[in-house]
Amino acid sequence: MEGYKPYKKDSDYSYSLGAFPTFEAIKKRPDCVREVFCDESFTEKEKLFDECKKRNIPCRVNGKQVKRLSDKENVFVTAIIDKAAYEKKLDETCGLMADKSHLVLVNPSNMGNMGTILRSCLAFGIHDVAIISPAPDIMNPKVIRSSMGAIFSLRIKYYDSFDEYRELYQKHEVFTFMLDGKKPLSAADAPKPELYSLVFGNEATGLPEEFLHKGTSVIIPESPEVDSLNITIAVGIGLFLFSQGKF
Amino acid sequence: MEGYKPYKKDSDYSYSLGAFPTFEAIKKRPDCVREVFCDESFTEKEKLFDECKKRNIPCRVNGKQVKRLSDKENVFVTAIIDKAAYEKKLDETCGLMADKSHLVLVNPSNMGNMGTILRSCLAFGIHDVAIISPAPDIMNPKVIRSSMGAIFSLRIKYYDSFDEYRELYQKHEVFTFMLDGKKPLSAADAPKPELYSLVFGNEATGLPEEFLHKGTSVIIPESPEVDSLNITIAVGIGLFLFSQGKF
Repeated sequence: MEGYKPYKKDSDYSYSLGAFPTFEAIKKRPDCVREVFCDESFTEKEKLFDECKKRNIPCRVNGKQVKRLSDKENVFVTAIIDKAAYEKKLDETCGLMADKSHLVLVNPSNMGNMGTILRSCLAFGIHDVAIISPAPDIMNPKVIRSSMGAIFSLRIKYYDSFDEYRELYQKHEVFTFMLDGKKPLSAADAPKPELYSLVFGNEATGLPEEFLHKGTSVIIPESPEVDSLNITIAVGIGLFLFSQGKF
Repeated sequence: MEGYKPYKKDSDYSYSLGAFPTFEAIKKRPDCVREVFCDESFTEKEKLFDECKKRNIPCRVNGKQVKRLSDKENVFVTAIIDKAAYEKKLDETCGLMADKSHLVLVNPSNMGNMGTILRSCLAFGIHDVAIISPAPDIMNPKVIRSSMGAIFSLRIKYYDSFDEYRELYQKHEVFTFMLDGKKPLSAADAPKPELYSLVFGNEATGLPEEFLHKGTSVIIPESPEVDSLNITIAVGIGLFLFSQGKF
């Protein structure tokens, strides 16, 4: 097929923009790559055709198709992602892995932030992410791109409420990151639970007060000169602290 | 004066967009705020006029002027920043403070990232930032906005090279963050120097190899599954670790 158009939420496909996320899609989730297009001028054409051929993924030179999907000048390659196929794998594992630690994002609102956070998850060994709705669509190309393709290595599932998520994963020790959290997180005495869920709220509003009692509420100590940390930084520090000794 | 136009690098003014950075400008650097404009519908009008009046800053309702400067719908207030006045204060302190720790950004390239990093600096008590050129213009409204106004609480100075900076600040213990850094940074045994410079490279290329020998080269341990952390996350973790016990 040709003639793919810019993404809409109800499209049955999405796409990666740029070399790094496209190679991630091809290598990590070939099962959900429908086909790949690149511009004549793409510098890694040979490697691209080679990697696609290995996995029986159709790959063609079609600069117009790449341009139609990207609003940026410097994008020369795209992989078309089959959304149904991407989601199907989650059915096979019956959702998130019960014996792995999780990140939980409650009502995030910014797609770039979501992607950056997914990239940090992979960097610190978290492969299972719960997203509490309402929240943006992870299949949006903006999320795929800012995740640098990390999305193709993760299991990500939406839930209608935190309680619905918690009901399914009761063994996880829950840590809620809040500006009025009770336990200050320090490098020297960070908790070292085996199985945990790190829970973060919305960029602008944080977690609602009730989360003070859904687990251990924690706070990242910071200067009174600022309102709060950027959410992606707070998540990065949380993931770093809880991954100690892993890498 | 009226009729301010969207920012250009050679403008003699810049501006804050939105309530939070505008109040930061008014409170922290009234000396460099020429005047303030808000839309009729701005919800904190009374507080705005009050804070401006206290500091003899002209403040007017002029929604058209706000709109002319902002490409986003949800911006209702702006402070016009006099660039010369902003920079003048740095002359008074003769540049960065010699007895405070520094962040050093070597050839950063993304304005949103720069702003986010400046916000993290303030959050972790670093007030002095060296930027090695070439680098974006910190006075660009995109940087001011993504810093959430942190820029108005910091001393920021450009240098032509790292060596030029280092020549001036020889007492600082230098830590260079590199993907092939020699010392892995862990929460348990992070260095605790009194006076330090944390040095980070460009988003895409990192620090050049020669920085392995400009101080202690460090690395944030992460999964081999990713290429690298997003630069803003790496800086956030570095600042967090080195600020231990401060807040």
